[in-house]
Amino acid sequence: MIVTIAGAGNMARGIGTRTLVGGHSLRLYDRTRGKADDLATTLSQEVSGADVVSVDEGAVADSDVVVLALPYPAGRDVAAVWAGALAGKVVVDISNPVDFSTFDSLVVEPGTSAAEQIAAAAPGARVVKAFNTTFAGPLVAGEVAGRPLDVFVAGDDDAAKRSVSELVSSAGLRPLDVGPLRRARELEGFQFLHMASQERLGLNWSSALAILP
Amino acid sequence: MIVTIAGAGNMARGIGTRTLVGGHSLRLYDRTRGKADDLATTLSQEVSGADVVSVDEGAVADSDVVVLALPYPAGRDVAAVWAGALAGKVVVDISNPVDFSTFDSLVVEPGTSAAEQIAAAAPGARVVKAFNTTFAGPLVAGEVAGRPLDVFVAGDDDAAKRSVSELVSSAGLRPLDVGPLRRARELEGFQFLHMASQERLGLNWSSALAILP
Repeated sequence: MIVTIAGAGNMARGIGTRTLVGGHSLRLYDRTRGKADDLATTLSQEVSGADVVSVDEGAVADSDVVVLALPYPAGRDVAAVWAGALAGKVVVDISNPVDFSTFDSLVVEPGTSAAEQIAAAAPGARVVKAFNTTFAGPLVAGEVAGRPLDVFVAGDDDAAKRSVSELVSSAGLRPLDVGPLRRARELEGFQFLHMASQERLGLNWSSALAILP
Repeated sequence: MIVTIAGAGNMARGIGTRTLVGGHSLRLYDRTRGKADDLATTLSQEVSGADVVSVDEGAVADSDVVVLALPYPAGRDVAAVWAGALAGKVVVDISNPVDFSTFDSLVVEPGTSAAEQIAAAAPGARVVKAFNTTFAGPLVAGEVAGRPLDVFVAGDDDAAKRSVSELVSSAGLRPLDVGPLRRARELEGFQFLHMASQERLGLNWSSALAILP
């Protein structure tokens, strides 16, 4: 697959690493081009045989999957601007719309989710929620506590979910299809709890949510 | 500790098993006394040295911990009737207020939780949310995938949370304090997702939610 990641932060690095390990072509976009350049250089050094380049936003048009690795609501705003180019595309929302000023609630209203707001902002996009419960460090490692990371996948377009699940599987992680896009409400809610509990539980942003079978 | 469980179903059996394994005194209450009798007999046969009896509702008064192992809103209604006896007590709400007719939402409004509604129904009770993400089977076993079960604990009374966490630890499980009682919103939301995904994920109500470190 051709995977374009918008954003060049820690999550882009984590998902980018796994995308390359899975043998896919990776394109990195950031509104500050130099950040995308730097991350492309880093990933090409860290993953042998990496097929990675930095791109401008026009590269979205022929991508198979576009990952919005941006905080909320920035990701929603980018989705709105790119709505035309994203029509028909598989678009992955990874965001956690946490109110970081209080760490006590989300910035989306109860009864909706960042993923649903992004889908509303880019109505033709085939939006899939994924990777919101995986921190960047475990993504780079690909595992936690000796187990492949669980990646919860929610969406209303079954073919789009299958594409994302294939991307996840090829990267050595375990996709878990948890239903329609509105299940993003519960995924975002629980990851907020997970993030807000890091200090209390003595974790260090290296923990991961799992469903143990 | 003296632990009284209200309800004599599968969850009472699971939590009752762990309570007895932890060396505590267990009292079982059910409005159909025969069910409490039967479960007491079963548990006394299954756990060696079990200190377990069936009781009437008066036994709540000198219990250290009262577990409402009842579906929602039945647990809330019992809490309201028992409000006087529960004042000052550690009361554990384990419920998942799922709309089982649709399996697509909760029966509590967004922005609240069963735990908060129970706390409102019995204002003097020291309500703690716990055991809502653990299915009955794994509770009886005490572990899943070779790991002690994670028990997420939320509440506004720190001493009450410590008592519940001690109960959990003594039972061989891992308590995770995730903050104030309103975090029950996210615990209930995610367990709803977990329950609603059982068939899709090929699980059999024997899976468990975990935070892997």
